[in-house]
Amino acid sequence: MARDYDPKAVEQSIHTIKALSIDAVEKANSGHPGTPMGLADITFEIWARYLRYDPKDPSWEGRDRFVLSCGHASMLLYSMLHLAGFDLPLSELKQFRQWGSKTPGHPEHFHTKGVETTTGPLGQGIGNAVGFALAARMKAARFGGVFDKVRVYCIASDGDIMEGISSEASSVAGHLGLSNLVVFYDDNKITIEGDTELAFSEDVGKRYEAYGWFVQRIDGHDHAQIRAALDKALAQNDKPSFIVARTHIANGAPNAHDTHGAHGAPLGKDEIAATKKAMGWDPEQHFHVPKEVYALFADRAADNAADRKTWDAELAAWRASHAEQAKTLDAMDSRAIPADLLEKLIAVVPDKADATRNLSNLVQQTAAELVPALVGGSADLAPSTKTLIKKSGGVAKSNMEGRNLHFGIREHGMGAICNGMALFGGFIPYGATFLVFSDYMRPSVRLSALGKIQAIWIWTHDSIFVGEDGPTHQPIEHVASLRLIPGLAVVRPADGLEVAAAWTLALTRKDAPTAFALTRQKVPVLARPAGFDPKTMLKGAYVLAEATGGAPDLVLIATGSEVGLAVGAREALEKKGKKVRVVSAPCLEVFDAQDAAYRASVLPKGVKTVSIEAGRTDGWRKYVGDAGITIGIDRYGASAPDTVLAKEYGLTVDAVVARIEQGA
Amino acid sequence: MARDYDPKAVEQSIHTIKALSIDAVEKANSGHPGTPMGLADITFEIWARYLRYDPKDPSWEGRDRFVLSCGHASMLLYSMLHLAGFDLPLSELKQFRQWGSKTPGHPEHFHTKGVETTTGPLGQGIGNAVGFALAARMKAARFGGVFDKVRVYCIASDGDIMEGISSEASSVAGHLGLSNLVVFYDDNKITIEGDTELAFSEDVGKRYEAYGWFVQRIDGHDHAQIRAALDKALAQNDKPSFIVARTHIANGAPNAHDTHGAHGAPLGKDEIAATKKAMGWDPEQHFHVPKEVYALFADRAADNAADRKTWDAELAAWRASHAEQAKTLDAMDSRAIPADLLEKLIAVVPDKADATRNLSNLVQQTAAELVPALVGGSADLAPSTKTLIKKSGGVAKSNMEGRNLHFGIREHGMGAICNGMALFGGFIPYGATFLVFSDYMRPSVRLSALGKIQAIWIWTHDSIFVGEDGPTHQPIEHVASLRLIPGLAVVRPADGLEVAAAWTLALTRKDAPTAFALTRQKVPVLARPAGFDPKTMLKGAYVLAEATGGAPDLVLIATGSEVGLAVGAREALEKKGKKVRVVSAPCLEVFDAQDAAYRASVLPKGVKTVSIEAGRTDGWRKYVGDAGITIGIDRYGASAPDTVLAKEYGLTVDAVVARIEQGA
Repeated sequence: MARDYDPKAVEQSIHTIKALSIDAVEKANSGHPGTPMGLADITFEIWARYLRYDPKDPSWEGRDRFVLSCGHASMLLYSMLHLAGFDLPLSELKQFRQWGSKTPGHPEHFHTKGVETTTGPLGQGIGNAVGFALAARMKAARFGGVFDKVRVYCIASDGDIMEGISSEASSVAGHLGLSNLVVFYDDNKITIEGDTELAFSEDVGKRYEAYGWFVQRIDGHDHAQIRAALDKALAQNDKPSFIVARTHIANGAPNAHDTHGAHGAPLGKDEIAATKKAMGWDPEQHFHVPKEVYALFADRAADNAADRKTWDAELAAWRASHAEQAKTLDAMDSRAIPADLLEKLIAVVPDKADATRNLSNLVQQTAAELVPALVGGSADLAPSTKTLIKKSGGVAKSNMEGRNLHFGIREHGMGAICNGMALFGGFIPYGATFLVFSDYMRPSVRLSALGKIQAIWIWTHDSIFVGEDGPTHQPIEHVASLRLIPGLAVVRPADGLEVAAAWTLALTRKDAPTAFALTRQKVPVLARPAGFDPKTMLKGAYVLAEATGGAPDLVLIATGSEVGLAVGAREALEKKGKKVRVVSAPCLEVFDAQDAAYRASVLPKGVKTVSIEAGRTDGWRKYVGDAGITIGIDRYGASAPDTVLAKEYGLTVDAVVARIEQGA
Repeated sequence: MARDYDPKAVEQSIHTIKALSIDAVEKANSGHPGTPMGLADITFEIWARYLRYDPKDPSWEGRDRFVLSCGHASMLLYSMLHLAGFDLPLSELKQFRQWGSKTPGHPEHFHTKGVETTTGPLGQGIGNAVGFALAARMKAARFGGVFDKVRVYCIASDGDIMEGISSEASSVAGHLGLSNLVVFYDDNKITIEGDTELAFSEDVGKRYEAYGWFVQRIDGHDHAQIRAALDKALAQNDKPSFIVARTHIANGAPNAHDTHGAHGAPLGKDEIAATKKAMGWDPEQHFHVPKEVYALFADRAADNAADRKTWDAELAAWRASHAEQAKTLDAMDSRAIPADLLEKLIAVVPDKADATRNLSNLVQQTAAELVPALVGGSADLAPSTKTLIKKSGGVAKSNMEGRNLHFGIREHGMGAICNGMALFGGFIPYGATFLVFSDYMRPSVRLSALGKIQAIWIWTHDSIFVGEDGPTHQPIEHVASLRLIPGLAVVRPADGLEVAAAWTLALTRKDAPTAFALTRQKVPVLARPAGFDPKTMLKGAYVLAEATGGAPDLVLIATGSEVGLAVGAREALEKKGKKVRVVSAPCLEVFDAQDAAYRASVLPKGVKTVSIEAGRTDGWRKYVGDAGITIGIDRYGASAPDTVLAKEYGLTVDAVVARIEQGA
């Protein structure tokens, strides 16, 4: 809690938050003025009296987290960051939504300091907030009380609450009893189409009670009620808090008040003037901040500085008496990996045919020992995705020291929670499900890539070779379509060695997510050329088997389970006099980033090239060229044993050889 | 309700359902035995006493709908279809999960008669069931009481209920008061990872009360309780029903009972023998159906036949007295479209620059007049997506005659509900949101394509030219990645005429979904060659502007808002002496389906070809060839006005001309 402020300064602060927001939207001629106005009271109380932050060190790990899940209200956050003393001058607010500014239309954590997570796609922010709160708890369980001080405040709109992802993440939060999480629900009864009554008549508070949350209902413009609710929320010790705050969109704008027109368009000059007049402000003055407002936030900064000093001292004292644990903390925070990670992972790869999901689990055990930041789980498929860390327990309300997360059948919530955990710091989270269900979590996967988040997405059952479960469970377009997400690397390893390379890539790529596509079925151990340097695998594609006798007249490029098929086809074709090279391409995005010389050394120009992958073929044309052949699957799968499907879909050695001999 | 059955026959029926299910899973050596056993009691009661169906006419439009949302329990459904007299002989049950059988791993409505919808991806079935119930209500409001008799029964598992999509769809069902919908929740406390307590401790019944449902809690193996709950549910008149049925997985299997091992693997010979012994059956007899079981279902079929006779008579009487409405009913059921649809839609296209979202709304008004089956709505973005049918009202509990659906901010629920409405029959539903949020509904979109469903997905704000909202709202990879979904046609029209063609394609493609990618920003009216036949647009790509003076030495192929850019580039390049053809390609999937001669006439071999599209470029390589250039965007967008973005991302005439002159 904070010192008492002069009521006049509080009032002026609220006015300022609103005025900055509507001025910036007006200047940009684009944006969302109504929600910042409706949320100014709540947000002020959080920032001025509760939120612990250090504007000079926005990434201080002991800070509280503030998540504006309704990212379209970004000017609310930018106004707060400015007033609170973060490096976001008025000149940036004046450049709202302009090229190169620090104030984009929706907040981007990788772009603007003080923004905790990228929001805008609705429901993601509240999911991230659950991840923050969970990460704080897990860190506290490992490293003691300082991390127990961290609170997560989140503001969510009707949209956030209607989206299924928030339902998934909120159920997880209730299950895990994350009492360090406080969500305000901006119950303003207004959506883009009009009144929420058009489509939204459920009892949201009751729904959150059903999830196991502590639910309060308040007037979101009554500061005493806001503070009382926050105090009660912070006093909870086994339930997250949900505060249904009845608010009015565009609160303070005489005519726009409570209208859905105020949601997504500037208020206009006249209404802004009327609003400022109603505040007792000069209608002609724009981007104005009264001195007493800066003074109030300077007081808050001073209080927060004192709080941080205490926190730093407590951490230092803990470090002094917990040298070993402190090393682990540092290793987690830096997400450090050993220089010889690949070698160490290769060392545990067995010399026998197995499914890459199983091989991945073997490798993962060593990765987990070497990298304490690694934690994760699956959407109720751990026995199928093979993603348990065997030496650790499951994360539960009563066991926050565990490393195995149970997300339930909630892929989308899993995605957002993992993103939040990674952004919190100290964790490299992984989330697992079947590849076909990557679609269920795709918006979170996109945000992990857009947001340069080191998350690992483990997707198994990666082709029609799932077999009997049939077309609803057989990915066809998924690998190709995931490759299209900018920044995401999709690794489809062909055997145990490539699985070790996949984990090495994932743990090395600190500013981007990495995805694995793993098989349900066995794949053979592949032979490598004499003197093969395993690091070559980290280039994304490499010559696995050179043509007998030198320069190839045919190159087969394949991924995952089809590399073994390519090797078989090579043997058959070489018997017929062809000189065939096999290129294994576990990760095309990484291969694309290699220099032209390396790429040409792997895929020589002018040599007939054939791609083989049990999925959509279009993306392969750029590798095989006009003269090449793309062998794959461009229609849905079917329910049958995998060996039958291989024949029916032309993915046998005989069928591949025949296609190549036909020449198209 | 039904006649009383001999208790012995009832008991034998339950045994039979269980035995067929475990025998089939065992023979396939793959599948899910536990859930059919746990749900046999409930399912028997529904099918033997409540469900109205006609096994000889599985698509009788007056039938009740049964949705097995937990599609992995498919043997439960196949067992019922067999016993109930549908065309699914024991020989098919013996081929469970085999190539070419009618009994795939998960039920597929397009493959097996009597299956109402394709389930397996969790949560989709309950969403479809909401769509069925809504469609029944909307049909009843239009065509009277016979459609009010239709009930929708759905069985949902823990997984269905944890998925966010079910939360979204269930909130809509509560809001609309769909009392013709009864959902059983199979509360068996078991998931793949173990006990639901690992991740699922919420109060599901309370959550459904919060959505406005009528909630009951029963013992799911107590037949009297099941019937009493069904009777109460069917007596509701303004609330959908949710029956929390405490069940036991693998009920009746002495050792597998209540174990998560029984979820996804065969019980094994010994346990099957033990189960049959416990039933008093011969453990060595497989795929056995006692005579009294067939007799019981024959009685049910007779009762249902009498019921259908009444229904048919009532419909005939209504038809006789409602000739005009009957015509509308037939038009809806056949999803008929006028032969001159394209011409009629073109007739309303204005000769002025506008956003394709606005042009689409204009065309849609005429389409809605011509095609009464057309209904739909958006995920709270109607004012932005421009998808209202202006002459109709909004669908609400009190207005089921409306055609405008308000889905709320629930894209995924929208997708599943639209799929359900289409499968119900009589409706061509459309669902709208921003293109970037197609990711939120992608699993339902995939199922619409896999399931050959005529749904229309309207996605606006289709590129970085969204502008100030920034990268979270700017699709980059979406058009390309949606094109990869087999069976989905993605139409990105360039101007009003192509918008008319887009709607014509969507309304004509009766066995597949069609998606639109529409602009937020204005696009110019494009000139067509003299004598241009508008039907050419329906070929997916066509020569929009031929090179001046004949054979081109350069072909520019573009879509949507970039066609205008291509036309500008052509003009600039022709001034410099080039002979440039512009190809507009509103739909590549449709173009790919044209014969080779047509395709070669549009994109001649050996002529330098350049693609221009404001999105990922990889998919274009197959059209432009090795020598071609792909101009597009392979990184995330940014928050700025669209004209600024055009410059920064190289999508201006000058930049395009420069790229072409550089030659790469």
